[in-house]
Amino acid sequence: MTVTSPSTAYPVSPRNRVKRVHERGSYDRTSVHAILDAAMLCHVSYVLDGQPYCTPTLHWREGETLYWHGSSASRMLRHLTQGVAACLTVSHLDGLVLARSGFNHSANYRSAMCFGTARIVEDPAEKAEALRAVVDRFYPERTASLRPITPQEAKATTVIGMRIEEASAKVRAKGVADDPEDIGHPVWAGVLPVRTLIGAAQPCPHVPEGLARPEMLAAYAEGRALDEALLETQRRYEEAVS
Amino acid sequence: MTVTSPSTAYPVSPRNRVKRVHERGSYDRTSVHAILDAAMLCHVSYVLDGQPYCTPTLHWREGETLYWHGSSASRMLRHLTQGVAACLTVSHLDGLVLARSGFNHSANYRSAMCFGTARIVEDPAEKAEALRAVVDRFYPERTASLRPITPQEAKATTVIGMRIEEASAKVRAKGVADDPEDIGHPVWAGVLPVRTLIGAAQPCPHVPEGLARPEMLAAYAEGRALDEALLETQRRYEEAVS
Repeated sequence: MTVTSPSTAYPVSPRNRVKRVHERGSYDRTSVHAILDAAMLCHVSYVLDGQPYCTPTLHWREGETLYWHGSSASRMLRHLTQGVAACLTVSHLDGLVLARSGFNHSANYRSAMCFGTARIVEDPAEKAEALRAVVDRFYPERTASLRPITPQEAKATTVIGMRIEEASAKVRAKGVADDPEDIGHPVWAGVLPVRTLIGAAQPCPHVPEGLARPEMLAAYAEGRALDEALLETQRRYEEAVS
Repeated sequence: MTVTSPSTAYPVSPRNRVKRVHERGSYDRTSVHAILDAAMLCHVSYVLDGQPYCTPTLHWREGETLYWHGSSASRMLRHLTQGVAACLTVSHLDGLVLARSGFNHSANYRSAMCFGTARIVEDPAEKAEALRAVVDRFYPERTASLRPITPQEAKATTVIGMRIEEASAKVRAKGVADDPEDIGHPVWAGVLPVRTLIGAAQPCPHVPEGLARPEMLAAYAEGRALDEALLETQRRYEEAVS
């Protein structure tokens, strides 16, 4: 495994250079990883016969490799045996920004775009590890308490891996940015923050009385922000596998 | 303008047919529109020199046309003058589903994938209307109270439009779906719901005392779910333009 210092930056090329509002962009691994790790949901773009597809899926990160998975029947996966160019993007919407001109209306957000070659994980050891990680990265140590995976289930699941070749992060996190001459315009302006929160757990009706939610799920406490819970479970996962 | 009954379904082709867990898929316009309209953030995929890009942006819908916008400098937009194949996807994460086997772990979600040809909106009337809509679709009647847009601002903004040629919706909204023989396995199972909520408004410090938040922003009340607010403002927008 190549050890890459998280303090270094991704190389910059025309592919990942942030062009629009470029002062919001950065290329350091720490910034990109923080945005990726704070989300479960990503969108992956790939091309099939010239047609672009934008597919939502769950992802996780191990060092500089992103993983996602799907059934073996998936349209995208059947075409990946050679490895295909892909772009995986994670975005968090953090606020709606209402300015005094239409032009300065904006949003607060964090996004990371990652470029690389997506490939099917064929190596049995890497695949077995990934099938554990897809659970344990989100729910610490949970695999050990589950009914073990069957060979048929493993066969029916395709895991995709993509080493991040280039990436960029883009963040807007501030208040209204009006033109100075508009400040006196008599209209309300400000930020409406938004946050994705965890609700009250809904136990399966078949969970026997007395079988409590395990302590290892404490990260997902009711009312907590999902991005914080996911950052915490990623840290725990990294500690567990290191 | 072509009037399309929202009760009809999109045509189904290999491009938009839902293959993975196909029983979660549907093609009716009402389902697709409800998912699109409940979000501000989308991801657009397009191809440039064989490389796929997955770009997060804000979108809105007018009938069967999706719009998004960006500065004229944007990488994507410069290549759109002829119109390019694009795929615009909206996804809502609604819950984390913890089952008794790794294989049956899942997520509750709503997603819509839309296919079409993205084109730059060149017609001055359509563009002027879009620059009003990008504000008023989200913030009812707000344009009328803003400092008017300048010709330079209009020139610096590129609006993209895409008629939806094909689309699909995919929804999972239920509890744990374990194999019957796993129900007795002694591990906690259930759903952790997640929801994106609006926080307390943060007024710009330059807003004069006594200038209240206008009633027309009531849809974005503190503690309300963002998807509900966006569905309400879309309804108001459709009533205003009809």
